[in-house]
Amino acid sequence: MKNIKINRALISVSDKTEIVELAKVLRGFNCEIISTGGTKKILEEAGIKVTDIREVTGNPEAFGGRMKTISFNIESALLFDREKDKQEAEKLNIKPIDIVVCNLYPFSKVKESGADLDTLIENIDIGGPTMVRAAAKNFKYVTTITDVSDYDAIIKELQENKGCISYNSRFRLMRKAFNHTADYVALISTTMDEQAGERSLRLAFEDGKKLRYGENSHQEGFFYKEIGAGNSLFDIKVLHGKELSYNNIGDIQSAVDSVKNLKRFGCAVIKHNNPCGLAEGDNQRKVFEAAWNGDPISAFGSIIAFNKPVDLNTVEFLNLNNENKRMRKFVEVVIAPKYSEEALEYLQFHKNLRVIEFDPKDSKQKFEIKYLAGSLLLQDCDEKLYEKIEKVTEKQLDCKKELLEFGLIGMMQIKSNSIAIVREMKNGNFQLLGMGAGQPNRLVSTKLAIEKSRENLNNEFEGNPEDFDKYFTEELGKAVLISDAFFPFADNVELAAEAGIRNIIQPGGSIKDKTVKRKCNELGVAMAFTGIRHFKH
Amino acid sequence: MKNIKINRALISVSDKTEIVELAKVLRGFNCEIISTGGTKKILEEAGIKVTDIREVTGNPEAFGGRMKTISFNIESALLFDREKDKQEAEKLNIKPIDIVVCNLYPFSKVKESGADLDTLIENIDIGGPTMVRAAAKNFKYVTTITDVSDYDAIIKELQENKGCISYNSRFRLMRKAFNHTADYVALISTTMDEQAGERSLRLAFEDGKKLRYGENSHQEGFFYKEIGAGNSLFDIKVLHGKELSYNNIGDIQSAVDSVKNLKRFGCAVIKHNNPCGLAEGDNQRKVFEAAWNGDPISAFGSIIAFNKPVDLNTVEFLNLNNENKRMRKFVEVVIAPKYSEEALEYLQFHKNLRVIEFDPKDSKQKFEIKYLAGSLLLQDCDEKLYEKIEKVTEKQLDCKKELLEFGLIGMMQIKSNSIAIVREMKNGNFQLLGMGAGQPNRLVSTKLAIEKSRENLNNEFEGNPEDFDKYFTEELGKAVLISDAFFPFADNVELAAEAGIRNIIQPGGSIKDKTVKRKCNELGVAMAFTGIRHFKH
Repeated sequence: MKNIKINRALISVSDKTEIVELAKVLRGFNCEIISTGGTKKILEEAGIKVTDIREVTGNPEAFGGRMKTISFNIESALLFDREKDKQEAEKLNIKPIDIVVCNLYPFSKVKESGADLDTLIENIDIGGPTMVRAAAKNFKYVTTITDVSDYDAIIKELQENKGCISYNSRFRLMRKAFNHTADYVALISTTMDEQAGERSLRLAFEDGKKLRYGENSHQEGFFYKEIGAGNSLFDIKVLHGKELSYNNIGDIQSAVDSVKNLKRFGCAVIKHNNPCGLAEGDNQRKVFEAAWNGDPISAFGSIIAFNKPVDLNTVEFLNLNNENKRMRKFVEVVIAPKYSEEALEYLQFHKNLRVIEFDPKDSKQKFEIKYLAGSLLLQDCDEKLYEKIEKVTEKQLDCKKELLEFGLIGMMQIKSNSIAIVREMKNGNFQLLGMGAGQPNRLVSTKLAIEKSRENLNNEFEGNPEDFDKYFTEELGKAVLISDAFFPFADNVELAAEAGIRNIIQPGGSIKDKTVKRKCNELGVAMAFTGIRHFKH
Repeated sequence: MKNIKINRALISVSDKTEIVELAKVLRGFNCEIISTGGTKKILEEAGIKVTDIREVTGNPEAFGGRMKTISFNIESALLFDREKDKQEAEKLNIKPIDIVVCNLYPFSKVKESGADLDTLIENIDIGGPTMVRAAAKNFKYVTTITDVSDYDAIIKELQENKGCISYNSRFRLMRKAFNHTADYVALISTTMDEQAGERSLRLAFEDGKKLRYGENSHQEGFFYKEIGAGNSLFDIKVLHGKELSYNNIGDIQSAVDSVKNLKRFGCAVIKHNNPCGLAEGDNQRKVFEAAWNGDPISAFGSIIAFNKPVDLNTVEFLNLNNENKRMRKFVEVVIAPKYSEEALEYLQFHKNLRVIEFDPKDSKQKFEIKYLAGSLLLQDCDEKLYEKIEKVTEKQLDCKKELLEFGLIGMMQIKSNSIAIVREMKNGNFQLLGMGAGQPNRLVSTKLAIEKSRENLNNEFEGNPEDFDKYFTEELGKAVLISDAFFPFADNVELAAEAGIRNIIQPGGSIKDKTVKRKCNELGVAMAFTGIRHFKH
């Protein structure tokens, strides 16, 4: 596949950035430049000789600019096969155009400006996509540039190849041109549907990477970048370790979401998409320990995320270079916005551990979707913690508002039915002490959260075993139990109160709210309603 | 917005279905018909007078058909503003074209045929999308038909309106035209990426319905149909009851997936996306009871799916018209391929109960996706139950292969870590006796499955309470425990064996497999490996 000498260019751009530079280089190789309206003016002002497109089309610019480029002559010059159709072209007096430089007028900007239907319609480009698609179709001979960011590479290539462009470049730019047009046309179609009060949705992804496999090894798995997305999970830097797996990536999203809204040092421990550990506080090492101790069994093989740069002292908690292998804490992935040099070096003691540089704050999700068989559910993200904290019992909640917020952040990441028990530790750190996830029956989630809290408190308890129950009840009395949805009966309150829980927040809204409140008053439990349910499936 | 009399039509279609009928109607209103190549031939053979497009363009058909319609005259005739540009058009001798009938050559067929790059390229239509988009842009005056299924409505409208088409029709068809072009262009762009060994993905959805809200009431929620999908969840018929909610729809997918591969009568009870009840057998009523009794507490407010037509006897189990309200079983949704008249009438005793007609077998999912912040995971669906059932202990599994398959089907729908305990009942039905879902620690899932089994067996036990433990152990001895992933330690086996479990299947593949097998042999447990993990998150 040979290089093609660029003898004739058609330039018609809405974004004029660097167009003069590109045109100058083309002229330097004696390339004729055909241009239209505004582009022509700018090039001529820069002293570049330009052929008016009307000389080529043989037609006037007509109908308020609706007809500029579309013509037998232009599209023929782009489309004819330089070998098969050579004689026919000569007979018809069609001279080849070798490069098209065209970026479509940004319809998205017009749309964002809140334009009315007439204005939107006027801004639908017909000629641009036609010449871009015609040039792209004939990429065997023609180069199509639709993106300013490609100018530099093309200039370099022209200079290195005596004014020629290679097949590989033409092929790559052809794909870009078709993608560019597809995005453009898609936006128009969804916009017109919107104008009719109809909803359509077109999602576009690129750069698909084949992963080793999907959730399981008999499933193929792929990872794509959303076209137009900023700094996303796709762009995370793996500083060390094995390739990320399908399940790693899903867990990383959960991990990042769990810590991104924490204000102090935050750390999440993720297993099967649920945070089984979460903590926040002023000392990162202590925070890591507290998160880990939320479920020190499940934490093995987990995904760990930090919301702030990580130092050596923090990661040394993993004991990666301990001579006693059993003391080493194995985790799959560590994510943080940054690592100190020493921390990074330390993490590399473990050959396979994936060390990832990504700032959780950069994770911006537009909406959530659930792809079903032939259909799709879409919703905006659940980002509001609560409506208000409304006292509904005789007793007032006895804890900081910040602890409630921490607990809500954690609970919101746990699959429904979800119950979280959180506490403020003696050192001022907040900790997810126990959680219950994914149960069909809320009572079981409450039971699981209490059992886990008991285990964890037992792990930290240093007194006489016979005093543990007292310690357990006391500690739970200082904690808060958070429910993702209302209590349908009073049984959850009974169970929680029996274990020692004295503070509960939940959305409220059950027909049994009265019974639930009465039970709280009877058992000396403080309860507040948040007004917002947080189902997550 | 006025009706437009159709005086001049441009017809160029690849799918010739019913084109003669449409053209005849147009001619009946004295409409001039301009046409190209194959379409022209067919119309003329049917005795319809046709203007050759070359008479309008003033150009030859050139370059092996690459240039046919694109011309100053055609696109001007479509694009000029009938009011503002009237005089200019007259001066340029441009006569308006009022309707374009054009369906693009189905690129997808060429692609599916495995065509090479050259053939694909040759089949990229440039002129078609140009004239469709030009006509659609000028929908204020021009009608654009891109779909044979619209001919009938247009014929009717022409006949009722003396050869005119209304603004509303033009608007609707404009949207269709832009959508059609968007799909077409999208397919080309992903195909060209494929040709380069790159993966891009474009998903398109239409008919978005605003739901009351998303997973929670402070989130907006929408439901879309995938463009091109067959009979999907979007098309389910709600025969009775309230509007489906966001969570209903997600649960319906889980319910449908849980029963669609069952061979005998099947029933699933879904809560929070997990089947908490599942059964299969020869008697539908008994199957419903068995499924319900898998978790008779959580079953309240659940989603119920059947895989076969439902009769009155089955649904009477719900006790909907029982005088004692407490005896009535409240469920949110019932799904079945069909209902007997009596069954349907009975279900309407409950005002809000959504009764849905949908055959679970019609649910065809192309792949699974997980939409993350600015990126996307995609995998093919998990459809293979097992590689082989490989005995790995001294004892052989003591149960039917069909029971194993039933259990695998159930377990595969339960969120990881997932443990299912299934049994064959005395009446030959298979039942999910207990399950553990969504736990970070597999041991907890096992514990949950055993506890639920104990509760359920206790509910059915009719002997002396002191004899229950014996009954429990015996019944569990006949059941099978199924794990979605390997056991990392022998503790799961110990816990299961202690409860009475004697049959276990799991994928195998842990570095501790040997220890696990040894523990089975020691405790008299039969274990088989399936070779396939079934994580589901």
